[in-house]
Amino acid sequence: MGWLFLCFSVSNLILTLVASIITAFIAPAAAGSGIPEVKAYLNGVDAPGIFSFRTLFVKIIGSITAVSSSLLVGKAGPMVHTGACVAALLGQGGSKRFKLTWRWLRFFKNDRDRRDLVTCGSAAGIAAAFRAPVGGVLFALEEMASWWRSALLWRSFFTTAVVAIVLRALIDFCLSGKCGLFGKGGLIMFDVYSESVTYHLIDVLPVLTLGAIGGILGSLYNFLLDKVLRIYNRINEKGVVYKILLACAISIFTSCLLFGLPWLASCQPCPSDASEACPTMGQSGNFKKFQCPPGQYNDLASLIFNTNDESVTNLFSKNTNFEFQYSSILIFFVTCYFLSIISYGIVAPAGLFIPAIVTGASYGRFVGMLVGPHSNLDQGLYAVLGAASFLGGSMRMTVSLCVIILELTNNLLLLPLIMLVLLVSKTVADAFNSSIYDLIMNAKGFPYLETHTEPYMRQLTVGDVVRGPLQVFQGIEKVGNIVHVLSTTRHNGFPVIDEPPLSESPVLYGLILRAHVIELLKKKAFVPTPVPTGTDALKLFYAGDFLKRGSGNGDKIEDLHFTEEEMEMFLDLHPFTNASPYTVVETMSLAKALILFREVGLRHLMVTPKISGRSPVVGILTRHDFMPEHILDLHPMLARSRWKRLRIRAPRLFKLF
Amino acid sequence: MGWLFLCFSVSNLILTLVASIITAFIAPAAAGSGIPEVKAYLNGVDAPGIFSFRTLFVKIIGSITAVSSSLLVGKAGPMVHTGACVAALLGQGGSKRFKLTWRWLRFFKNDRDRRDLVTCGSAAGIAAAFRAPVGGVLFALEEMASWWRSALLWRSFFTTAVVAIVLRALIDFCLSGKCGLFGKGGLIMFDVYSESVTYHLIDVLPVLTLGAIGGILGSLYNFLLDKVLRIYNRINEKGVVYKILLACAISIFTSCLLFGLPWLASCQPCPSDASEACPTMGQSGNFKKFQCPPGQYNDLASLIFNTNDESVTNLFSKNTNFEFQYSSILIFFVTCYFLSIISYGIVAPAGLFIPAIVTGASYGRFVGMLVGPHSNLDQGLYAVLGAASFLGGSMRMTVSLCVIILELTNNLLLLPLIMLVLLVSKTVADAFNSSIYDLIMNAKGFPYLETHTEPYMRQLTVGDVVRGPLQVFQGIEKVGNIVHVLSTTRHNGFPVIDEPPLSESPVLYGLILRAHVIELLKKKAFVPTPVPTGTDALKLFYAGDFLKRGSGNGDKIEDLHFTEEEMEMFLDLHPFTNASPYTVVETMSLAKALILFREVGLRHLMVTPKISGRSPVVGILTRHDFMPEHILDLHPMLARSRWKRLRIRAPRLFKLF
Repeated sequence: MGWLFLCFSVSNLILTLVASIITAFIAPAAAGSGIPEVKAYLNGVDAPGIFSFRTLFVKIIGSITAVSSSLLVGKAGPMVHTGACVAALLGQGGSKRFKLTWRWLRFFKNDRDRRDLVTCGSAAGIAAAFRAPVGGVLFALEEMASWWRSALLWRSFFTTAVVAIVLRALIDFCLSGKCGLFGKGGLIMFDVYSESVTYHLIDVLPVLTLGAIGGILGSLYNFLLDKVLRIYNRINEKGVVYKILLACAISIFTSCLLFGLPWLASCQPCPSDASEACPTMGQSGNFKKFQCPPGQYNDLASLIFNTNDESVTNLFSKNTNFEFQYSSILIFFVTCYFLSIISYGIVAPAGLFIPAIVTGASYGRFVGMLVGPHSNLDQGLYAVLGAASFLGGSMRMTVSLCVIILELTNNLLLLPLIMLVLLVSKTVADAFNSSIYDLIMNAKGFPYLETHTEPYMRQLTVGDVVRGPLQVFQGIEKVGNIVHVLSTTRHNGFPVIDEPPLSESPVLYGLILRAHVIELLKKKAFVPTPVPTGTDALKLFYAGDFLKRGSGNGDKIEDLHFTEEEMEMFLDLHPFTNASPYTVVETMSLAKALILFREVGLRHLMVTPKISGRSPVVGILTRHDFMPEHILDLHPMLARSRWKRLRIRAPRLFKLF
Repeated sequence: MGWLFLCFSVSNLILTLVASIITAFIAPAAAGSGIPEVKAYLNGVDAPGIFSFRTLFVKIIGSITAVSSSLLVGKAGPMVHTGACVAALLGQGGSKRFKLTWRWLRFFKNDRDRRDLVTCGSAAGIAAAFRAPVGGVLFALEEMASWWRSALLWRSFFTTAVVAIVLRALIDFCLSGKCGLFGKGGLIMFDVYSESVTYHLIDVLPVLTLGAIGGILGSLYNFLLDKVLRIYNRINEKGVVYKILLACAISIFTSCLLFGLPWLASCQPCPSDASEACPTMGQSGNFKKFQCPPGQYNDLASLIFNTNDESVTNLFSKNTNFEFQYSSILIFFVTCYFLSIISYGIVAPAGLFIPAIVTGASYGRFVGMLVGPHSNLDQGLYAVLGAASFLGGSMRMTVSLCVIILELTNNLLLLPLIMLVLLVSKTVADAFNSSIYDLIMNAKGFPYLETHTEPYMRQLTVGDVVRGPLQVFQGIEKVGNIVHVLSTTRHNGFPVIDEPPLSESPVLYGLILRAHVIELLKKKAFVPTPVPTGTDALKLFYAGDFLKRGSGNGDKIEDLHFTEEEMEMFLDLHPFTNASPYTVVETMSLAKALILFREVGLRHLMVTPKISGRSPVVGILTRHDFMPEHILDLHPMLARSRWKRLRIRAPRLFKLF
């Protein structure tokens, strides 16, 4: 037994090491689930490196090794990130560094098409992970996308249809078992179909309780995960070695725990009518022998030493009513709950979906065993409902989780109960904190733009938050000034103003982007005197010069060099300026400006003065100006105002973390 | 047999008469499906009377009688309208005329909450009609809603969850058959579950062909329905008598056709292994005797003299492979196709969903019989796919139709094929014309605001389409002027301008709504001299005075009367003006202004001048200014421009209609 443990823990450790080393050294952006990063990207936040080719590579390899290393981490999140990554790489025309580019992809080189592609990619990820094509579309819609158009709906539907057909073909191909574990169970992963799901009004009460407790467990899970993540971040900041040591420590701890726990469970005699061999030999199977004498099995070991998919299938199954002991299920639930919390933050690709399903299923199964004979519902169905309630309490989705669970279990008759459980658990959990992905985004410091406006924003005007001093360009600007402004600020957009003699009075001409100005400087199409060049200047450029680059691939002002003479010349910005920028007046309510900013999907919003005569533009609002932290920083008395969100706070005790 | 025919046709005629008379005399707005009207409402178009209490009453009674009268009309559309109607009545605080009001409902008396309620109501309609709660949510999302927020997603999910639970409880209650036809078949209406759905790559080809032809049939259906509807409109315009005569003519024609057609089918011997009595007695059953000798049945009569639900169940069923003849199915398909086209436009509640499903199922069954032994797929599955393709070709939804069909048939293994068929049929049909609901909205002349902008809008600025002369109010305005302006224009919003001495130069203060001005005039809180009253004026009013009324329930300026003295007094509009209206500069691109107008969901968009000095507002853009017809009217040369949508046009032949 000692040798076995050594074998088990060393192979786990090596796999974890591979995952964490490639993540830490090649692509740190590949760590974690990836769903928060993709969600933030779709909201307009470009986190560095999340869609590069090396991130894709590390995400795939790292996810495989991390899942194989017995860590309780999922594969769904990394698959969503992988799908989004492939989509984004297509959207930026391939990878220049790895010489994988296609010319026809240049049509997608703009913000909107790339965002659409990434949405479809994340839908494909969920569709592939759970073999749930409709669930994938709804996941992308409900959780990921910040802007939705009906064209996007059917594009993502098309994407997941292709995923479904490819999956179906591969399953057909692998039917005879030549692809290992893949393809077992067909298109439905956890088939619990039974003709005779009957339930009555009396069954609704335990189901509601299950949902409510699931919601509390889910929000507590979010709370703990958030705290653990912040502790891990402090460790990870110390250096790469600390990151890898942390991953190793978690791996060794997991190995010890998984190998040690089954000793707590007593051996059970094999059922005489078992459909499979008992005790089971080989990689899968429902009756693990572990330390038991022949003819007996260890039920906790059967849960632990199985793939996550197999465990869930066993928990959901309706033919396993007397297979598990109370204590084993409870130990398994507690183990999964805490192991998944401490496993997520390590420097390796790690999803949250599968751990949540396993945890929720064991919780539901336990409740089902307690309620047992007093209910018409099968214990397996309680496990399904438990998984739904825990997912709902942690991830706070409704329609998409409902459809994903339906597509996982193929039991439409359960639909009303699943809907009920999801609604109850989401409502309960929303009273305590926000969804797990929102908490992770918050911990990562992404300036995520919420749909709703905070109540105190109605008390403020745009003028109250906009900051100066503002850098503006003249319509025809001296090259030296442009270079100076670009080098000394990090703004990405600049107002262009026409002053006399170009116009009667100072007037706002439009908005020019930093990337476009740099492109103009690179071409050095300067004129010696400040006269308009007209649209002739456009002939020097191809449309392709102004395409949106992949994030981090843009040129920098520091790389450009100019002679003294060039610095004294002029550049006509008019033909290259966006002459129709969205504007608001400085007395505009901040809440309404946020609605405009968010619904139209802007990056820059120009603020114009109420009374003319001064400069025609007061400032530019960007995403950061709408962040509650920034506003409360400027107006601290608002934080104490009575317009707060209603939410039950964690008691003082938890502040120790 | 003659007596039977008389009985059949007279009872049909009486039921049709009841439906058409109550519709024509009590609530003409209840005619038709109601889905286009609700969809237009959610886009911001208030068609008169669509959500009144009498419309609700007529819709329910009329739909029951119309469906009972053997007309080929559906119940799903009317149920959506009914759901939306109930929701809208709740949203406007009940019905004042019928003394059904609740005080607590005043919180929903605003545009946004009422729109949300109507969205949830329409989701509930589909959920109830098809027992498809998730399908209902998706239908509301994909087809109905023009603006979507994630809060709305889970509210509509909650609504349909309640629908599902109530349905489940009622079905439980009705299990023993005490509620007539209701409750038969449980929660799944057309259960075609079979463990062994196997299909291979070779089966994809006939399925693709099925989808493509279904798309062509669907778009042809839309085309013909549009033409018939325009002819009917011309008849209906002549008067109420003509409307009712048309309905009677259609009813008599339908009766003759339905009773005459089964004579074309030959009698079939009863199968020896039939699970039910053959020939069937009673209202439902699969083997109708009709004119046949004992021991034989008429297959066409079995399809025709059944409820639509039963016919679809028979067509979808996998145990009926040798029950139908080629000719019977073909006759049934052609009959349904044309009957549903001519039945829709009559003055009675009439849905399109169920006729489309019946037509599509018979089309699919026919294809299935033709392909027959060359395919691994069952004929019943072809019927399911045929229904999907026809629905997709006519209604152009994807995800929602997919989920509705899944929830109707409970066969998740078919999912990849259904997705494929829907995508193919939608793509093919989109090449010819737009969806049936869009065509109906177009025929009704609703100014529906599309998500996409027409390409020529990029060539125009806001200044090119905004019209004068503009009516403005001063911040402190003479009552006489206000009354004059309100009586001579029909505008719903007016700019409020401050001029010297209130400000240094003329400045735009904000926007005031007609309804609010009328409310101010009603209170007669006038002042004798033009001085600001400040916020004291607010004390005269309750918040409730400015709540949004139900459409058509607002006060009119003609009902208010003023003395000569009052007409000379002044009204301070400042405290009641929206001081943060959205504005665009007149040089703004029209396409970008439309994006703002549409995404933020505006009714009025103020246009400000580029150069200050003139009046601070150039005009107000409303929904009508963005309509392609209006723009092409102002700039006719754009119609000939090369930026047209790519669409295959119907050949000259069809122009005869």
